[in-house]
Amino acid sequence: MSFRAEAVDQSKYAPAVEGILPAIHRRWSPRAFQDRPVSPADLAQLFEAARWAPSSYNEQPWRFLVGLRGTSTHQKITSTLIPFNQSWAPKAPVLMLGVAKTRFSHDNSANDYALYDLGAATALLVVQAAALGLATHQMGAFDHAAARKALEIPEDYLIGSVTALGYQGEPALLPNERMIAQEVAPRTRKPLSEFVLSAWGQPARLVE
Amino acid sequence: MSFRAEAVDQSKYAPAVEGILPAIHRRWSPRAFQDRPVSPADLAQLFEAARWAPSSYNEQPWRFLVGLRGTSTHQKITSTLIPFNQSWAPKAPVLMLGVAKTRFSHDNSANDYALYDLGAATALLVVQAAALGLATHQMGAFDHAAARKALEIPEDYLIGSVTALGYQGEPALLPNERMIAQEVAPRTRKPLSEFVLSAWGQPARLVE
Repeated sequence: MSFRAEAVDQSKYAPAVEGILPAIHRRWSPRAFQDRPVSPADLAQLFEAARWAPSSYNEQPWRFLVGLRGTSTHQKITSTLIPFNQSWAPKAPVLMLGVAKTRFSHDNSANDYALYDLGAATALLVVQAAALGLATHQMGAFDHAAARKALEIPEDYLIGSVTALGYQGEPALLPNERMIAQEVAPRTRKPLSEFVLSAWGQPARLVE
Repeated sequence: MSFRAEAVDQSKYAPAVEGILPAIHRRWSPRAFQDRPVSPADLAQLFEAARWAPSSYNEQPWRFLVGLRGTSTHQKITSTLIPFNQSWAPKAPVLMLGVAKTRFSHDNSANDYALYDLGAATALLVVQAAALGLATHQMGAFDHAAARKALEIPEDYLIGSVTALGYQGEPALLPNERMIAQEVAPRTRKPLSEFVLSAWGQPARLVE
């Protein structure tokens, strides 16, 4: 796997750990995007990666509504974003909405893993994007009811997240100093001892 | 990234697509596991990969209860599985339960993305596992209430999936012919045209 490293701001990489897939530690969620469009071939690769995600009963409940800049789908997704996200996300050449079918196709019973599996498929999509030198930023802060209406999402699908996708831009492109400061701040995560447990409340020994 | 290819049954790989991360198309969900244990160092790498998943407000709602074979956590997880899963999964040297905190830590409001983000973190974990030559199989078919009780999961955490983890074994290790047939059957997925849409009901042009 080769990386188009020139397109990515190395300052926000997670620390490299020997053996961890580079696309996993290079992926992060910037807000500054270049105007440069994403090729249809690259987009197809992202969805090919999502396609092979695991899912409960192999239902593959995920659907992605993909809006390229200049299309009504891009405009409709933009219209549902909260003002803060409207201040940066519409510059991304691709905005997509992920939704998840809530009933199994084989027997119409409830699929309690619909959102879980949508999260998994989208995770593979954003990791594959990082491998291609593309930047992604998922958002939950949008008007879900407005998105359902504008994009005609049936009631038996849950609304997931909106993902902005494109090539990372310079932080100075952002509309204010606070957002620029967030863009260049170090990434933070909990230590393993807080979420890898051998029993409830007890960190697993492997992470000592 | 080097792969320990000898540990993986190539017959079940998704078709390689130029540019797709090999760990994504090599990952699948077998049921036959070897006795061979997983080293603590490899386990730590899996959780390091999960650690850098994106999450709403960077809440990182995921927690993993990890049971190594011979521990009470492994036994407790086994006890909650449906009989079909009890017929194969307990042979895996690691069984883990993923759970997700349903309230944001910064203001105690509801986190509607808790399961979505757990799905994402677990997806990175299983892709990293594939990169290390390890096999994983997630299950939703277990007694969630019994798991909550046996593992003392607080009410403000949602139960996610149980993941069996280890080195893939020969299909002939499985308890019956039907399971062996499933183990060697080709993997299937929907074509992109069924889940990548430019508007509801309309396949995106990029996948033509």
